[in-house]
Amino acid sequence: MDKSAMPRAFATHHDWYSATVDTLEVTDASNTPKLLYTYNNAIHGFSAVLTVKELQELRKSSGFVSAYRDKTVKLDTTHTFEFLSLNPEFGLWPASDYGKDVIVGMIDSGVWPESKSFSDDGMTDVPTRWKGICQVGDNFNSSMCNRKLIGARYFTKGATATNPNAIGDSNSPRDTFGHGTHTSSTVAGNYVEGVSFFGYAKGTARGIAPRARVAMYKVAGTVGASSDILAGMDQAIADGVDVISISMGINFVPLYEDPIAIAAFAAMEKGVFVSSSAGNDGPSPMSLHNGTPWLLTVGAGNFDRQFSAILTLGNGMSTTGWSAFPANALLVDMPLVYNEVIIACNSSELLSEVSDKIVICDDKFGSLESQIYEVTSSKVAGAIFISNNSQYPEGGSLTCPGLVINPINARLLIYYAKSNTNPTVTMKFQHDLLGVQPAPTVASYSSRGPSPSYPAILKPDLMAPGSNVLAAWVPTSPAAEIGSNVILSSDYVAISGTSMACPHAAGVAALLKGVHPDWSPAAIRSAMMTTASQVDNSYSFIRDNGANLTYATPLSMGAGQIDPNKAVDPGLIYDANAKDYVNHLCFMNFTREQILTITRTSNYSCSSAPSSDLNYPSFMAFFNDTSSTTHEFSRTVTNVGAGASTYKVKLTVPPGTSISVTPDTLAFSEKNEKLSFSVSVDIHQMNATMSYGSMVWEDDGAKHTVRSPIVVYRMV
Amino acid sequence: MDKSAMPRAFATHHDWYSATVDTLEVTDASNTPKLLYTYNNAIHGFSAVLTVKELQELRKSSGFVSAYRDKTVKLDTTHTFEFLSLNPEFGLWPASDYGKDVIVGMIDSGVWPESKSFSDDGMTDVPTRWKGICQVGDNFNSSMCNRKLIGARYFTKGATATNPNAIGDSNSPRDTFGHGTHTSSTVAGNYVEGVSFFGYAKGTARGIAPRARVAMYKVAGTVGASSDILAGMDQAIADGVDVISISMGINFVPLYEDPIAIAAFAAMEKGVFVSSSAGNDGPSPMSLHNGTPWLLTVGAGNFDRQFSAILTLGNGMSTTGWSAFPANALLVDMPLVYNEVIIACNSSELLSEVSDKIVICDDKFGSLESQIYEVTSSKVAGAIFISNNSQYPEGGSLTCPGLVINPINARLLIYYAKSNTNPTVTMKFQHDLLGVQPAPTVASYSSRGPSPSYPAILKPDLMAPGSNVLAAWVPTSPAAEIGSNVILSSDYVAISGTSMACPHAAGVAALLKGVHPDWSPAAIRSAMMTTASQVDNSYSFIRDNGANLTYATPLSMGAGQIDPNKAVDPGLIYDANAKDYVNHLCFMNFTREQILTITRTSNYSCSSAPSSDLNYPSFMAFFNDTSSTTHEFSRTVTNVGAGASTYKVKLTVPPGTSISVTPDTLAFSEKNEKLSFSVSVDIHQMNATMSYGSMVWEDDGAKHTVRSPIVVYRMV
Repeated sequence: MDKSAMPRAFATHHDWYSATVDTLEVTDASNTPKLLYTYNNAIHGFSAVLTVKELQELRKSSGFVSAYRDKTVKLDTTHTFEFLSLNPEFGLWPASDYGKDVIVGMIDSGVWPESKSFSDDGMTDVPTRWKGICQVGDNFNSSMCNRKLIGARYFTKGATATNPNAIGDSNSPRDTFGHGTHTSSTVAGNYVEGVSFFGYAKGTARGIAPRARVAMYKVAGTVGASSDILAGMDQAIADGVDVISISMGINFVPLYEDPIAIAAFAAMEKGVFVSSSAGNDGPSPMSLHNGTPWLLTVGAGNFDRQFSAILTLGNGMSTTGWSAFPANALLVDMPLVYNEVIIACNSSELLSEVSDKIVICDDKFGSLESQIYEVTSSKVAGAIFISNNSQYPEGGSLTCPGLVINPINARLLIYYAKSNTNPTVTMKFQHDLLGVQPAPTVASYSSRGPSPSYPAILKPDLMAPGSNVLAAWVPTSPAAEIGSNVILSSDYVAISGTSMACPHAAGVAALLKGVHPDWSPAAIRSAMMTTASQVDNSYSFIRDNGANLTYATPLSMGAGQIDPNKAVDPGLIYDANAKDYVNHLCFMNFTREQILTITRTSNYSCSSAPSSDLNYPSFMAFFNDTSSTTHEFSRTVTNVGAGASTYKVKLTVPPGTSISVTPDTLAFSEKNEKLSFSVSVDIHQMNATMSYGSMVWEDDGAKHTVRSPIVVYRMV
Repeated sequence: MDKSAMPRAFATHHDWYSATVDTLEVTDASNTPKLLYTYNNAIHGFSAVLTVKELQELRKSSGFVSAYRDKTVKLDTTHTFEFLSLNPEFGLWPASDYGKDVIVGMIDSGVWPESKSFSDDGMTDVPTRWKGICQVGDNFNSSMCNRKLIGARYFTKGATATNPNAIGDSNSPRDTFGHGTHTSSTVAGNYVEGVSFFGYAKGTARGIAPRARVAMYKVAGTVGASSDILAGMDQAIADGVDVISISMGINFVPLYEDPIAIAAFAAMEKGVFVSSSAGNDGPSPMSLHNGTPWLLTVGAGNFDRQFSAILTLGNGMSTTGWSAFPANALLVDMPLVYNEVIIACNSSELLSEVSDKIVICDDKFGSLESQIYEVTSSKVAGAIFISNNSQYPEGGSLTCPGLVINPINARLLIYYAKSNTNPTVTMKFQHDLLGVQPAPTVASYSSRGPSPSYPAILKPDLMAPGSNVLAAWVPTSPAAEIGSNVILSSDYVAISGTSMACPHAAGVAALLKGVHPDWSPAAIRSAMMTTASQVDNSYSFIRDNGANLTYATPLSMGAGQIDPNKAVDPGLIYDANAKDYVNHLCFMNFTREQILTITRTSNYSCSSAPSSDLNYPSFMAFFNDTSSTTHEFSRTVTNVGAGASTYKVKLTVPPGTSISVTPDTLAFSEKNEKLSFSVSVDIHQMNATMSYGSMVWEDDGAKHTVRSPIVVYRMV
């Protein structure tokens, strides 16, 4: 609704929206128009249950801007702090006082307040600026909040209206699923000693910003509704959160119908940073959601820990393989079966003929998952799966005692099994391999750019750890399975997804907000992106596990792996404000109504010359026809370093292109000074669809390297 | 062998025995007479592999006393310290400095030195008097001993000779089974935080004497050989142990062929206290082993902890039941099946028709164990077993998610299941019930007296916690099972048996030895027995779980439940020495050879009038014919209290008997004074076979109550 059209008779927006709905002619007596929410921060408007006729009538109302149908939103899903080099001695943790007094609003499935991760041991008093509440609901009372979990609300009317028979604690901030508990504790969980995922990932859990505050806005069970998300983000902004973390998204929806994009615009205007997940539909191109210019879009990476088992042959030789069998199974000196028929492991009946032994299964036809199922259904004591599948360990489960080894390691196993009359093996479970190389790699499931909803801006923005992340869980939700029918519970689980990567970035944003409270959301994102790393722990360029470990492109990892300690001191930042984003929307030919839906106010207009440039810290040279072969970008950087400094440009030119940067030197005389430059990309030599490079501004002694990825995308 | 017959030509007993065997005419070339061990402490003699002919020849050798065939010995298998009221504030723990510098020799299946229970954190230097070694063996090197595990040796020649194909680390002090690791850590394990049995019995493990030292004498794998036991005890005595704990025994063997009885005599002579297990063949009468007058025979009790699960019905009502399912199974709001056919739970096929649901199983015909098997083999999600079986929880396992509730609690469950169309239940596992009443109870499996090998002395002597005792385990040995084929490993397990009770008593003996280093083994045993408790935690007389919870008799619990803090100050003690035991053997008509086999020396003889009295702290009035109706006992007590004191007798007369004690008052004028009295038991009125009572000496103000159980046993 265009709030400027509100008659003066109404004291509040709520009264106006309510009256608007009430005056609609009722066309279905069994379904009186029912107002669900009114919104005043994320958007100006309301959600209501309406018939088609009622909607037609509403469209004629004064102040009407746009309406869209409620959508169903998908939810996406701790050594990671170490892998990100966070430590108490130097860098972002001590600089930010561990995120003390920064408030992170979680838009998610609720919270399990009894989790030790939400204990407020060591937390100081809640900041007085906080306006949130601890909403009473089913199995949830107001004393369940504390100095760590400072607020909790629920917004589930939309989901209930869409699916009235859905089960679960809808009327409560309580998490009955686990997702919101996991993401919240990943952002800002307190220190909890002695946790593990059934013996894997043993250690002390903690959030990325262990002293930040959590406010939960429950908008979803297993799925969420757009109207609920809008209501939750609307309230989070009003309550005074500093950062929003939202690990969910809607695929293939235009920005003006995307509640996250819409609410994030309002958040951005109020200085609230929004971190979102890219989605788990990789590795296909253009599989990404939340590809919105004014929020952070986070892809997921694998890090350097692998859950594994140690396999020792009867001759003393040993190797390790992936295993996440959720118990300390005892398999010592067990008879090993190597059999040309059984090795297909495609029949539990056949397998049961060698019960109480260890079988070898060869995943010749990519049947690892079904082999695990057949072995689990059989009476064999365990299995060694030979497989090249590197994607299953990114988040798969193992319901039978066993492990997965690669075909190269399997050669000695098979030789041993064939050349001994009574071969035996021993397996030792619950073994964490650390320092696994290469790491990070882009997770195969992580959704890839370009952004279908906004291809002109390179997305995702960056990547963060997302696979097998250990964090708090709901004890009444399944955590793992043994055999065919034993489901296990756990207070902590390791799960995978961009949902797990997003709160890592939100935690880093909270820490940065603690150090630089005056930085805009765009400045914080710029600092994260321009300092991200492209190098893995084998000193090679980061690889893509969804592309046979070839080098990752900016369309899978964005600017690279988030590097918190570097982000605190980026040297230069690419800033942007609401007007800049609107200018770009105008250039992208969004209609006035579409723009108004996003911006909620007529203050912004396309009257000024729409700009093809958004001051973004990455470059997407998008050639959508064959007529043009040159793309010009102009950018402005702000010097946030110590003072006078001179930066020189360094280019890694995308193959088949030529690039010029003017000027190629930026001499700042003082802090906060802004200087502009232009980048010209020419594709005369380029035959491929895609080409990748980068541009780096480097100061004296390379104290700061301000890097932007460049993607050249030529539609053919 | 009679060592006094050793020719002077031989420098050592070993040379003599070796020559004796070497001179035997070889009758089987493939089996040259092979000396296994020579013994010099526990007995004088040797063990060897001999043919029948060789043995016949040996019998003619000079100095030959007796020979017997090697026997196969059965092994019998932590809130308990709290249940025994041990605490750091007062009593036996601080008084003994937690057993510091007391050395306990374990005669058992070896030790897992890597267990945290054998860490020597907080231990002082090894006492200089210690003469033991850390013997190198398979997977065992000399650096595996430390200030806690001060010695380790192995004696497995006998077992290997008897069963050459036995597997396992025979040639090593290493435990591959778990039994010896469990018993050793029960006696003297160091403090280990955060242990549990798959989530049950969570807490800090510690031995009864957490600062005592452990020396392991491995004499057995899963079974042991007499010759090995003799060798182990022989060496333990030579090495300088203060206490021996031996959780194994041989059923139905005369004392002079019982290696434990024989070696324990030598130990007793050297002042070494021997604690032994009564056996797990209860509740039948006369099922006991180690019923030997000069050692402590320990029965097993249940204590006040029950592993359980909480069952909550869909209507909110809840109850608890026994469960030891070894994982945190997730069963929340699961559909419940009550079905008149399925309830028999006697077919896994039938059960699988209601897969993914919870079934109710009624143990109408005592089929609990087979019902658990069928449910485990099926696809159901879990089961509620209705059963009156109180013995299964004493040590049974549960391989499927479920719990056992009693028929009274089951009534509401069945009513709920019948009266609801969609009944559901929730189960929560890994719940420890503490303060369970009544406790202690005598464990049904605990072997009962009278002692078949020595019925004139009341056995067992006392009881100690034995059921579901948590202690260290061998990680390569099975610890629990889930489903039909998943075996689990654990560093700590809860297991049951008199094997677990024996080390509790050995630990208390070690603590008492620390306080009273001058006390004889008989004095220590007397202190334990006369201060034992007969009252349970419901302030009733201790009950017998093997006899439908009727009152326990001295034939099942001996003097009662061990009470460490009282044993430190018993007031009076009944002492006895080697000569006293021999006198009694003479009275029991043992032959000279039989006595010599036990005593190893001709120093003792039956020339003095054999006495029907042994100065034992309990009374067994054994009438083995109908001619006599009166039994006279004479006893001497030593005042170990502060000084002058007067004790008066209090009698609980066994029904059908009359008892007189003369004098009925004992007035001591000083410490260590000895006074004698006589007890006359008359059975004129007794019609039953058995009758039970007690005699108590009580001083002024009942500061000390010195109690002896009385059993009157009339053969009919």
